[in-house]
Amino acid sequence: MSRSSFAASLDASDYVFSHDVRVRFAETDAMGIVHHGAYLPYLEEARVEYLRAIGHPYQSLHAGGIDIAVLESAVRYLQPLRFDDLMTVHLAPSAGTRTTFEISYLITVDDRVCSTAMTAHACVNSRGRPVRLPAWLATLAAAGP
Amino acid sequence: MSRSSFAASLDASDYVFSHDVRVRFAETDAMGIVHHGAYLPYLEEARVEYLRAIGHPYQSLHAGGIDIAVLESAVRYLQPLRFDDLMTVHLAPSAGTRTTFEISYLITVDDRVCSTAMTAHACVNSRGRPVRLPAWLATLAAAGP
Amino acid sequence: MSRSSFAASLDASDYVFSHDVRVRFAETDAMGIVHHGAYLPYLEEARVEYLRAIGHPYQSLHAGGIDIAVLESAVRYLQPLRFDDLMTVHLAPSAGTRTTFEISYLITVDDRVCSTAMTAHACVNSRGRPVRLPAWLATLAAAGP
Amino acid sequence: MSRSSFAASLDASDYVFSHDVRVRFAETDAMGIVHHGAYLPYLEEARVEYLRAIGHPYQSLHAGGIDIAVLESAVRYLQPLRFDDLMTVHLAPSAGTRTTFEISYLITVDDRVCSTAMTAHACVNSRGRPVRLPAWLATLAAAGP
Repeated sequence: MSRSSFAASLDASDYVFSHDVRVRFAETDAMGIVHHGAYLPYLEEARVEYLRAIGHPYQSLHAGGIDIAVLESAVRYLQPLRFDDLMTVHLAPSAGTRTTFEISYLITVDDRVCSTAMTAHACVNSRGRPVRLPAWLATLAAAGP
Repeated sequence: MSRSSFAASLDASDYVFSHDVRVRFAETDAMGIVHHGAYLPYLEEARVEYLRAIGHPYQSLHAGGIDIAVLESAVRYLQPLRFDDLMTVHLAPSAGTRTTFEISYLITVDDRVCSTAMTAHACVNSRGRPVRLPAWLATLAAAGP
Repeated sequence: MSRSSFAASLDASDYVFSHDVRVRFAETDAMGIVHHGAYLPYLEEARVEYLRAIGHPYQSLHAGGIDIAVLESAVRYLQPLRFDDLMTVHLAPSAGTRTTFEISYLITVDDRVCSTAMTAHACVNSRGRPVRLPAWLATLAAAGP
Repeated sequence: MSRSSFAASLDASDYVFSHDVRVRFAETDAMGIVHHGAYLPYLEEARVEYLRAIGHPYQSLHAGGIDIAVLESAVRYLQPLRFDDLMTVHLAPSAGTRTTFEISYLITVDDRVCSTAMTAHACVNSRGRPVRLPAWLATLAAAGP
């Protein structure tokens, strides 16, 4: 087996958006750090805030009959996150296919790199079938890093 | 950015262990399927049962001063899991370095392939420093696919 | 404010059904014990298995246009649950109104009492409106402790 | 069995502190609303922000050898929370015993009452044994509603 090989920059200036999230106690585990499964909701929260920030809130997509499915996720845990840490989730979209796009992420705490990640997504209709990306999203993704 | 490129077999016979997990309602989301963040605890539960099955329960590792940290995770969501599905998580360890190893996973429901995944791990001491894998674990991982 | 005053027996023989659940590492927190928020999914898993055991699986209710909403939950944390504990969740339904019912719970580990709990539920239709309990459920709840 | 009988005011002005939380998609379930188990982390997040706001951050308590254990929780689900809702969690401490205190909660979305809740807590030392409340906390709780 080969390791997951996604490339995500460690330089925050390579990302187009950032969103702060405070670690909840519920997200820690008995090793005293944030459980590795808790990161995916952080990435999702940042994606939702990104869509809102660019004027395409998720709910308006959904109201228009489009949902964003998750095809793949990958996370590298470089330095632990701890209870009450105020992390910054940086993200940047990038191109996929006609029906898919990707997002890369960098998580920092006080400019310390804690994690990198990627998610791959498809636009789907209400029956779960892939649909062409909305034009604004295709343009955004094509302009990505 | 390039997609995560881990290779995980779609053939259940390529895996050395399997463990059944029933989907909880709490793990579904408003798209009516299991949330993508809920898969990592399934993989973890299967790892824990695998260690128990081969006579090295996690608690005995921990009592011996060794913890297993998660370095990386990657999941491909191929077909949705739904509430009450009884999934089978298949897994196989594989070699990493002197201090790390990897596990690949296949999730099936009634022989339908739903997901593949990989996790990479390090053995660490109680201060979180990498330590050489126990001999049994190094041997297991070296024999992996 | 007065404390929550539900009464739940500490005697396992007062309950009509039991279901075993193994604690996942993901459910622990940085105090080294199971996070208090992780108990509600345990109770829910036991309810689902109870309905299956008595021949009324949740999915058949749902297919018949009835969902079971949660109106209230209360949990007492008496002794901590820890990673890898194999708990037994005991439960018993009891009567509410024409549209509601309640369930009480006892969680034990090796006959040690760890928690008691109650949940209150309403049967609702697909628009979320309260509907009369199915006859079998009304009968069960009326016979409760 | 009797229902949980805690009293929590439906009037936001009866609470001394409030904190806003945005619902994550991960917290919804297949009924299309927030899962009932997701509320306890919201309450916990609000407690942590309350302690920070009054100059006694949780981490300084912990550093001083005191942890706050959860003895009991109770939640009433009055109106559903939905994905992306920006809720306000209102809270007020109240008196318990020499070693315990309670907090009551009101969750609103746009001034619509969605939930009330209570949690009961003990101050414990690093071995989990109950200790007398710090003076500031005893004073706060005694002044509660």
